[in-house]
Amino acid sequence: MKFNYSDNIINFKEGTVIISGGGPGNIKLVTIKTILALKSADVIIYDSLINKSLLKYCKKKVKLIFAGKTSTNRACSQEDINEWLVKYAKMNKKVLRLKGGDVSFFSRGSQEINFLKKNKIKFKVFTGITSAQAALKENNKKEVDTKLCLNLITGHKQIKNFSRKIDYNYLVNTGGKILVYMGISQIENIKNNLIKNGMKKNTKISIITNATLENQVIYNTKLKDVTDFVNDNEVKPPSIIIIN
Amino acid sequence: MKFNYSDNIINFKEGTVIISGGGPGNIKLVTIKTILALKSADVIIYDSLINKSLLKYCKKKVKLIFAGKTSTNRACSQEDINEWLVKYAKMNKKVLRLKGGDVSFFSRGSQEINFLKKNKIKFKVFTGITSAQAALKENNKKEVDTKLCLNLITGHKQIKNFSRKIDYNYLVNTGGKILVYMGISQIENIKNNLIKNGMKKNTKISIITNATLENQVIYNTKLKDVTDFVNDNEVKPPSIIIIN
Repeated sequence: MKFNYSDNIINFKEGTVIISGGGPGNIKLVTIKTILALKSADVIIYDSLINKSLLKYCKKKVKLIFAGKTSTNRACSQEDINEWLVKYAKMNKKVLRLKGGDVSFFSRGSQEINFLKKNKIKFKVFTGITSAQAALKENNKKEVDTKLCLNLITGHKQIKNFSRKIDYNYLVNTGGKILVYMGISQIENIKNNLIKNGMKKNTKISIITNATLENQVIYNTKLKDVTDFVNDNEVKPPSIIIIN
Repeated sequence: MKFNYSDNIINFKEGTVIISGGGPGNIKLVTIKTILALKSADVIIYDSLINKSLLKYCKKKVKLIFAGKTSTNRACSQEDINEWLVKYAKMNKKVLRLKGGDVSFFSRGSQEINFLKKNKIKFKVFTGITSAQAALKENNKKEVDTKLCLNLITGHKQIKNFSRKIDYNYLVNTGGKILVYMGISQIENIKNNLIKNGMKKNTKISIITNATLENQVIYNTKLKDVTDFVNDNEVKPPSIIIIN
């Protein structure tokens, strides 16, 4: 049976925003919901981490806006993105905000949602596969033992410093796997904090770069060596770091 | 542009097993990969938590095997499932093991993978949206503040007792959100352990039942009241509990 899109209505109304998680990169790891939103949107504001091939599902007359922000380069500010979302919704467009991974896990989705609420713009959030899941899966090929606690943290140094401090002491002592989003540029800091709080220097570290894409690389090293390893191998974002 | 399935090959070979996460329930929250696997499989062994509507994408001549296990009822044992996977792969079938949510997060996926490895059966794992993401998203509609640490735990009382103990002391003290999978039947135990380890009795609890489905319910209560609340409202699995 063919997938019948007419059976599958996502109710994307003019003047509304859909914030959608575009998944970890592999085009086949997007959800049907996201494909449907892509097919219907008038304006698409997309991040650098999404797979650009997804954009082939757009309408011909779509307005595409690149809103990429990487650790070294910013095409626009978060304020720009917020303003665009509201501007095009007020022009009665169907606005799709297409983000990498999932919206709920360490994305700026919450800031965008708050801004939309403040401006009384209707919105929906579509869940996507988060890169941590993809990384965990790749890693599981070798190591399938499931621990009872999984800690997800972000290593991202936020531009505005409203972030809470990570309590490394407790993190070390939970004993569960630690998955770090956006941690490459801060790896020395993370390493030092983990060791200072008692994590064993020989703890196994895996780093999954470009998870699920053809250029995916899985690196394996130890906590004490991780900074040198990242420098020597020129490990770049986007990467997920799996500790223990 | 229509989604072109011929562009999207998943390389599902005879005599192999694909273990796929069928997502949290909503049929539009499955990935393209899972749809492609469904369309190609000769044998599908599916869990009770998957959306049965997904099965309409199967081939006409598919063999469907229900492998549901709920907290009160078991159609088969984990050993049965393991044996079926190997049996049909050895018969040179394309075997799809379709699970709810994601394979990497607190599923028995690892046991099945180990058994397949032992029997030298080739397999692939396809990531799906985990129910925790969907629950978090539903919850975020009201509460979008992102914390820097997210703890995922399982409340499931495992049939074989090889599970590690959850360290509630550390869990309470990480300060991050705690998401509990399969915790309804153990809610009293979880509550007592959290309070004993210093969690405030008025801590906010949300319970999302049947996340993403039409019969989704979001309950809100407080830690101290949660057992009575679950009993009074007859809250049933599948539910994700969000603490704090």
